Amino acid sequence: MPIFFLILWFNTFTAMINEIANHRSIRKYKDTPVPEDVLNEILEAGTRASTTGNMQLYSMVVTTSRELRERLSPCHFNQPSVLQAPVHITFCADINRFNKWCRQRGAEPVYDNFAWFVNASVDALLASQNVALEAEAHGLGICYLGTVIYTTEKIAEILELPDGVVPVAAIVMGYPDALPPLTDRLPLKGVVHRETYKDYTPEDIDRIWAEREASEETSQLLKANELPNLARIFTERRYTGKDNLAISRSYLEFIKRHGFFNQ
Amino acid sequence: MPIFFLILWFNTFTAMINEIANHRSIRKYKDTPVPEDVLNEILEAGTRASTTGNMQLYSMVVTTSRELRERLSPCHFNQPSVLQAPVHITFCADINRFNKWCRQRGAEPVYDNFAWFVNASVDALLASQNVALEAEAHGLGICYLGTVIYTTEKIAEILELPDGVVPVAAIVMGYPDALPPLTDRLPLKGVVHRETYKDYTPEDIDRIWAEREASEETSQLLKANELPNLARIFTERRYTGKDNLAISRSYLEFIKRHGFFNQ
Repeated sequence: MPIFFLILWFNTFTAMINEIANHRSIRKYKDTPVPEDVLNEILEAGTRASTTGNMQLYSMVVTTSRELRERLSPCHFNQPSVLQAPVHITFCADINRFNKWCRQRGAEPVYDNFAWFVNASVDALLASQNVALEAEAHGLGICYLGTVIYTTEKIAEILELPDGVVPVAAIVMGYPDALPPLTDRLPLKGVVHRETYKDYTPEDIDRIWAEREASEETSQLLKANELPNLARIFTERRYTGKDNLAISRSYLEFIKRHGFFNQ
Repeated sequence: MPIFFLILWFNTFTAMINEIANHRSIRKYKDTPVPEDVLNEILEAGTRASTTGNMQLYSMVVTTSRELRERLSPCHFNQPSVLQAPVHITFCADINRFNKWCRQRGAEPVYDNFAWFVNASVDALLASQNVALEAEAHGLGICYLGTVIYTTEKIAEILELPDGVVPVAAIVMGYPDALPPLTDRLPLKGVVHRETYKDYTPEDIDRIWAEREASEETSQLLKANELPNLARIFTERRYTGKDNLAISRSYLEFIKRHGFFNQ
């Protein structure tokens, strides 16, 4: 018992918030469902995040039905986790609800523009990170799906999103079936600037990526991809110019068509 | 001693992550500086957040110099907290560092478009929320400054941001001098949709805002603003159409001029 309390003491007082320090993206899930009360506490945690003028310009669409997740799966390139994880949450920038309230009160909202796409996205993303951490505090795992901006039109159709509601992030959530190691990060100095931004010299760039480039993981990737360096894996395999521009155009068109581009 | 452990037990196991549950925006600060080791642990927490393809497409510009904070202050409409709080962090979507690395390795990045403004903003915002929570775990307080998108050109000049680096969030951070009450939020059902988005009926809208509209705080605001309802305070006082459109245009122009709009 005393040893147990000692461990508790250390966890609580000395280091980083446990969930922040131990976050990893989970890609394998058990099919155990998430109890309703746990899910509600997690969603409630989302609402405690800061929000622009306390307007809460976001909605969280929580999808658990197998049929809907099967329809969402191709939008996320059939990543197995979308069907494995029992909970799928799409975080949307949402001015629809606020606009409806304003109009119902005889107030004329002018939030259908790019600045409010940004404000509403900030709200949605701060909420999403609270949700992610709170889920982890309950023993759950999550993974962000960057693909949410690739196929937004289709996702919006499946989730029946009205105008003024645009997905900006999505996560899958469930009980982890495998715990991968922590992912490496660039050295802190590589992403922090003191006082003002100090632009990177070629030597800085070499130093920042040195450890990752020298890693065993990288050398395996180079072999598998038959490419001479990690940067080219990003530009020629993972995120190619052609794909990037196609996604960029379709996502921008989507927000233009859905009520965020009155300039 | 046993009672102490009992309290600890409750905090750790039963409820929401303490920092999430107790977050409030702090607007009055002591001038006590934040120790370097604490600041570094907080920034490190930022880097543990999920990031697009582990690219860390963000930079955190940490400004503590009084002179620079004096120059930033008007960009944030001279909110007193900007000068009171010893630390000011500007979270930027950053493709500059990644582009430089790619080019130095003979890889050709095509990340200068809107989709990557979104990806990089997601990275910056998830990091910012980790930073906010970790700061609170160290007894610090924070406040997000929504004004960061109002005067971006000037902020970028002060912080010497190069092309490919766009501020998307800013926080002030320091030891709280006053702890305001928790801010109310809309009922959870007002922001959560199960399975798909269920658009709001007029009755839903009334129900969602009922408690806030009936509050003492609202009735004081209505009196002070000489307006008949809270929605009109938002549209006619806090966020007017004229301001919104001006901010929208200038921020969009900024991201277009700074390397995020090759479509």
